[in-house]
Amino acid sequence: MHALVRELYPFCRSITGDGVRATLARIAQEIPLTVHEVPSGTPVFDWTVPREWNIRDAWVKNAAGERVIDFRRHNLHVVSYSVPVHERMSLAELRPHLHSLPAQPDLIPYRTSYYKEAWGFCLPHSTLERLPEGEYEVCIDSTLEDGHLSYGECLLEGDTADEVLVSCHVCHPSLANDNMSGVSVATFLAKALAGSRRRYSYRFLFIPGTIGSITWLSRNEDRARAIRHGLVLTCVGDRAGFTYKKSRRGDAQIDRAIAHVLEHAGRPHATLDFSPYGYDERQYCSPGFNLPVGCLMRSQWGQFPEYHTSADNPGFVDAGSLAEARETVLSVFDVLEHDLRYLNLKPQCEPQLGKRGLYGAMGGSGVRQIEMAMLWVLNLSDGSCGLLDIAERSGLPFGAIHAAAQMLREHDLLALAPGTP
Amino acid sequence: MHALVRELYPFCRSITGDGVRATLARIAQEIPLTVHEVPSGTPVFDWTVPREWNIRDAWVKNAAGERVIDFRRHNLHVVSYSVPVHERMSLAELRPHLHSLPAQPDLIPYRTSYYKEAWGFCLPHSTLERLPEGEYEVCIDSTLEDGHLSYGECLLEGDTADEVLVSCHVCHPSLANDNMSGVSVATFLAKALAGSRRRYSYRFLFIPGTIGSITWLSRNEDRARAIRHGLVLTCVGDRAGFTYKKSRRGDAQIDRAIAHVLEHAGRPHATLDFSPYGYDERQYCSPGFNLPVGCLMRSQWGQFPEYHTSADNPGFVDAGSLAEARETVLSVFDVLEHDLRYLNLKPQCEPQLGKRGLYGAMGGSGVRQIEMAMLWVLNLSDGSCGLLDIAERSGLPFGAIHAAAQMLREHDLLALAPGTP
Amino acid sequence: MHALVRELYPFCRSITGDGVRATLARIAQEIPLTVHEVPSGTPVFDWTVPREWNIRDAWVKNAAGERVIDFRRHNLHVVSYSVPVHERMSLAELRPHLHSLPAQPDLIPYRTSYYKEAWGFCLPHSTLERLPEGEYEVCIDSTLEDGHLSYGECLLEGDTADEVLVSCHVCHPSLANDNMSGVSVATFLAKALAGSRRRYSYRFLFIPGTIGSITWLSRNEDRARAIRHGLVLTCVGDRAGFTYKKSRRGDAQIDRAIAHVLEHAGRPHATLDFSPYGYDERQYCSPGFNLPVGCLMRSQWGQFPEYHTSADNPGFVDAGSLAEARETVLSVFDVLEHDLRYLNLKPQCEPQLGKRGLYGAMGGSGVRQIEMAMLWVLNLSDGSCGLLDIAERSGLPFGAIHAAAQMLREHDLLALAPGTP
Repeated sequence: MHALVRELYPFCRSITGDGVRATLARIAQEIPLTVHEVPSGTPVFDWTVPREWNIRDAWVKNAAGERVIDFRRHNLHVVSYSVPVHERMSLAELRPHLHSLPAQPDLIPYRTSYYKEAWGFCLPHSTLERLPEGEYEVCIDSTLEDGHLSYGECLLEGDTADEVLVSCHVCHPSLANDNMSGVSVATFLAKALAGSRRRYSYRFLFIPGTIGSITWLSRNEDRARAIRHGLVLTCVGDRAGFTYKKSRRGDAQIDRAIAHVLEHAGRPHATLDFSPYGYDERQYCSPGFNLPVGCLMRSQWGQFPEYHTSADNPGFVDAGSLAEARETVLSVFDVLEHDLRYLNLKPQCEPQLGKRGLYGAMGGSGVRQIEMAMLWVLNLSDGSCGLLDIAERSGLPFGAIHAAAQMLREHDLLALAPGTP
Repeated sequence: MHALVRELYPFCRSITGDGVRATLARIAQEIPLTVHEVPSGTPVFDWTVPREWNIRDAWVKNAAGERVIDFRRHNLHVVSYSVPVHERMSLAELRPHLHSLPAQPDLIPYRTSYYKEAWGFCLPHSTLERLPEGEYEVCIDSTLEDGHLSYGECLLEGDTADEVLVSCHVCHPSLANDNMSGVSVATFLAKALAGSRRRYSYRFLFIPGTIGSITWLSRNEDRARAIRHGLVLTCVGDRAGFTYKKSRRGDAQIDRAIAHVLEHAGRPHATLDFSPYGYDERQYCSPGFNLPVGCLMRSQWGQFPEYHTSADNPGFVDAGSLAEARETVLSVFDVLEHDLRYLNLKPQCEPQLGKRGLYGAMGGSGVRQIEMAMLWVLNLSDGSCGLLDIAERSGLPFGAIHAAAQMLREHDLLALAPGTP
Repeated sequence: MHALVRELYPFCRSITGDGVRATLARIAQEIPLTVHEVPSGTPVFDWTVPREWNIRDAWVKNAAGERVIDFRRHNLHVVSYSVPVHERMSLAELRPHLHSLPAQPDLIPYRTSYYKEAWGFCLPHSTLERLPEGEYEVCIDSTLEDGHLSYGECLLEGDTADEVLVSCHVCHPSLANDNMSGVSVATFLAKALAGSRRRYSYRFLFIPGTIGSITWLSRNEDRARAIRHGLVLTCVGDRAGFTYKKSRRGDAQIDRAIAHVLEHAGRPHATLDFSPYGYDERQYCSPGFNLPVGCLMRSQWGQFPEYHTSADNPGFVDAGSLAEARETVLSVFDVLEHDLRYLNLKPQCEPQLGKRGLYGAMGGSGVRQIEMAMLWVLNLSDGSCGLLDIAERSGLPFGAIHAAAQMLREHDLLALAPGTP
């Protein structure tokens, strides 16, 4: 997964344009991906698909003709969606178009101006301060024209039409954790799931942030209703523990499943209540949809010094962190797949597990985890509790509860509750 | 407000009598006040309006004819509602009628005997201990006769008949914090509200404690049903932080509004659960009414050393504390006035705030409080949440939430939810 | 109660057999006890009443013919339900039949093999390690034959058919805290209740663990429905504070009553959430019954070093602890008996308690606990709250709340709410 991050990192992505297309083409080498092209000007709810932006080159040259800012050296040097410009101007005239971070003087910031026509350059503050007075030649060789918004979609059909959504944004240029990490983990999740039989269908979206989710929701109002659980994946590659931002509902099954998996992983993690700021969960959780979609991160946006700077490079992303993220999400999917309600078929007193070989014969010295799990499943399977409820109440890992339920089913002590899918 | 406390402090008030009338007359100079006179003997629920008590003079003279206890020096020297007496007696005979505080030997305690015919004097313990044996002449020149119970009422009509109640007791003689502070703040609240247009009607009651609220409720059962929110104001003038005692309901809108305002004021404060002991909230919150009425104090009754002693004098009351109390209650009223439910008119995904000039154009670098407030109002305005709910869930101050709602209404992104007054 | 523990301790009990019969016979000397005999082979839900086990002698002799393990010296030396054996064998052959505790080398462990035919001996690990190689003669002179399962039942009828269940296991051989302590306290609870008039009927069960409660429930499905509250008593004789394990419901009246009594006792105690492992509450709380039955202990099973070893002897049990357990349960029964819902007959404002002599006449100086209790009972008795609710919300002890309610009833200020038994 880290190799994919490294490979995709240099592409100059934005919310539209060839950088996104190249990214989707690369993902399509790994998984079955449908690429959609939505024309500029298409109304999508309160928004309009913007014109397509592409860029070939950009620079600021000093009086000696030397490139003092050079897009070819780093994608972040140009404000995303900058309109074309080619002029000579004094430093004073240029200054309002230059963005830097005085507190992080060696880093290039990431800036965008999608919906207001503007142009600008980003550069290290230390470079900015060394620029002498004088005349500069400024060039941004970009196009902002009618074209398309591109996004990729991968649907893995399961036994039911109920869907699990995985969404990640593909609009950030050379930023590795945000969000080639999410793109890479989502891609390899789809690869992992493609080979297995599942109850749920899984839909993966590779979309530009905000306008992409708005566009998808606008074109798929009916399909959105089939989403039972969802995750936005972003910033999952750094070395911090996981941070999970809950869905707007706050107690959705996805929220509880992730809390359970993270808690039993036994490593530090944090949970954030929903807020309407962040990534595309903002759109999925808007009141007209209110989908049960949370956001899984490690470091939270805006809370780590590398955020939206040139320091968010592939070296900031860790291969082990990516692998752990994928395994964690797969564990969450396991919970969702198997969180069903059962009925104890011998509900009066405990059934005699010993005579079925399910319980230790020698009394007087304790009980094993799988035996405790069977007792819990039997005790709480009155039709009102699902396996995740039982795992939560018992404090046992979902895996043990699920294994216990399987053993009890095999011995005809348990059956799916009526009405369970 | 402190001047009014000082001016009213010397009046000899009780639950009836001319001291109350003089107090009400003074308040009527500030605000439109209706004074009610309820005849002695009037049945009010399980109680009866008592005879009216007035006092001209009272003293204990020693053998030399010197006033060793002198009502003219402090109102608290006489047990309130003392029946007339004029006798000579030994110190031993007098002793059961003398009340002092051994642990606070220099202070005069405050004692009453409203419903049992008795007489008595209160004096510093240090004075009591210096009284020599011998004969004393005792005189209380009081009257306890059929008359009236007096209370004042000020109704400021708003756009609706729904009422906010402010109640304060006017029965305590020379005690400043308890409760000339509440009387003064209530008076100036009424002055502040009189000039503005309001959704709610505001009713101010200046009543003797217990029997006054019982009398009002007994005479106004129908009006009581219009009370949507209420506050008893008492002990709001000392220098401690606020203490709020919740209504019997515990989660009434008034309880939540006060908690919100106190929390966002960022100063130490305390919240008490309801208990059926305290001030007139006992009556408003009796099970036959169960009105959403809390009690705002600074120091709690019985919990400060000056409580019900001569140390509760105007010097114990602080002008700044009174002003802050008034401002705090006005902020609470602002919350109540504006805590309405709205509907997001573009509930599918976020509306594009940027094109309306409501959102910063430059992406990549954070969001301001008012922008966050707009996002929260849009996200939660599905008709189930009021603005106070949104303020609570977002952690933002109500003022920002309300301002955001106003801006969104002006841009036709928000409308009052159906059924909202 | 400690004398009864000492007297019963030496009996060799198991889940069936003459040791249980002798135990029940001794209890029947104290209280009216019906002894039931259920034949081996009787189906009881998913189980079958086992064959009856009795033992006369058992030993392991060394080559010199000396008893190196001798059942006559301690009942725990033999694995309960050991089938007969009389053989010579090497130490290596004997070894798998010997059970010891390496971490507690001087104690004999307690082991059973009720449902798998086996035999074995338990001995101190220090003894085991000293056994030389060589040939041993092994003898267990036991019988495992069709017979009966015995249990005792004592029903004390009250004014209603609603029942309080007290259950304790009588199957453990020479273990004092587990559970002659529970047996003794239950016996003396029945003695204490027998002389008083009660609202509830009280049913005491002295049963073998697991199979006993399953047998009783299987034979008494209808009666089980009358159980309103229940307690399993076990390990109540050691010197630790109380541990209460809640019923499966978690918020049953018995759970709240015990929490209240323990809290107001002002001594350290612990509360455990329900789990389906423990004592007979496992059966009472199985989903097909879901009875409100908790488990009162001091030290919890498995959590004290003496648990299921020869160190759980009468010296481990304290007479004061037994007495305190009985008093605590009686206090809990008091709560259950008197936790009724009342209606305030003067619900509008407070009734005037003073004129009825229920309230101090002198105002200005606080209020006593019984007065506070009356105010709470009046304030909350709107028909929705019982006296335990009121005790919980007020923080006052149930006894004060109940006494206040009695006083208010005597003054016609309170009446039972309609529908209250």
